[in-house]
Amino acid sequence: MPHIPLEEHLPGITGLLEYRQDSAQPIRKLTQLLLRGPSTLTEAERELIATIVSYGNECTFCTTAHTAAADKLLGESNTTRAIKTDIGSAPVSEKMKALLVIARHVQQSGKSVTTQSIQQAKDAGATDVEIHDTVLIASLFCLYNRYVDGMATRLPESTDYYNTLAERLVTNGYRRLPQGYSHLKKISPTP
Amino acid sequence: MPHIPLEEHLPGITGLLEYRQDSAQPIRKLTQLLLRGPSTLTEAERELIATIVSYGNECTFCTTAHTAAADKLLGESNTTRAIKTDIGSAPVSEKMKALLVIARHVQQSGKSVTTQSIQQAKDAGATDVEIHDTVLIASLFCLYNRYVDGMATRLPESTDYYNTLAERLVTNGYRRLPQGYSHLKKISPTP
Repeated sequence: MPHIPLEEHLPGITGLLEYRQDSAQPIRKLTQLLLRGPSTLTEAERELIATIVSYGNECTFCTTAHTAAADKLLGESNTTRAIKTDIGSAPVSEKMKALLVIARHVQQSGKSVTTQSIQQAKDAGATDVEIHDTVLIASLFCLYNRYVDGMATRLPESTDYYNTLAERLVTNGYRRLPQGYSHLKKISPTP
Repeated sequence: MPHIPLEEHLPGITGLLEYRQDSAQPIRKLTQLLLRGPSTLTEAERELIATIVSYGNECTFCTTAHTAAADKLLGESNTTRAIKTDIGSAPVSEKMKALLVIARHVQQSGKSVTTQSIQQAKDAGATDVEIHDTVLIASLFCLYNRYVDGMATRLPESTDYYNTLAERLVTNGYRRLPQGYSHLKKISPTP
């Protein structure tokens, strides 16, 4: 049960973003920019960073939601399964493997990021902006995971929820839903 | 040395906020809202939450900066010294002690927050919004600390820097500096 009263039909982050809408606005904006804005990393690659950090923080809601979003963007679920157990075995580029290693380090602590792991990413072709964005996205999901679990938010009653949420994250991103998205809106007002 | 090229005269978070200004904007807005916006927690109390989380994450830049800001707001440095070693001994209210305990839990993990620690805060008079904001501020500083240390940002050359920065955080908050603040602007374009 959540530590504060949140709307029962809004699990995970969704109830929190409704609870304090003024703080939700910049959180949503930052997420939309980093995960859906212009980038040389694909949307799927950025969802993989969100997934691996949430998985490391053992945040069930965020891990399941971003796994579903990445799976939908990739059209398969082998990659999200692989990165959770052995990044080296995942069917992603060497650059992406190196960035996922950095994300896992950030999840543990900023101080865990090593010069060696940064160099590996650079050697595999990662740009400075890609390294920057990987660290910032990983840091942002350390915020999300703590917010969601620190408030003891509910999980959805059915795992179907995550498929609908993933559809919305792929279609609409992290913005507040515009008018006319009632088929997605039923699950929550914000992802 | 930072993992990516950042302006040499901008230590800690300040160089990062300049490096990618579009992501800096919502980060700054969220921080201004949570640490300086309307709240039943004082600005000093909110800086104490930032301080204890940054200290727990061993982020030297953030710990020193927010310690200096809290000290300036409080007019003394006993409180920031006390919360780092023994929250119970700090000259703050029972409510604030309970909220600082929650912040320390969030720093470790969202899952570390206990029903008991939440109940202690409520018993000491903490409102739902105060509990919410404590968890979100603590989560935000987990983002900051990872961003600052994950990118291996520089420390300032002189500790005088932190006094000037604290003056700015007290006077101007977390917004971008307006025109005419050249005496503060010299240290950095953003806190």
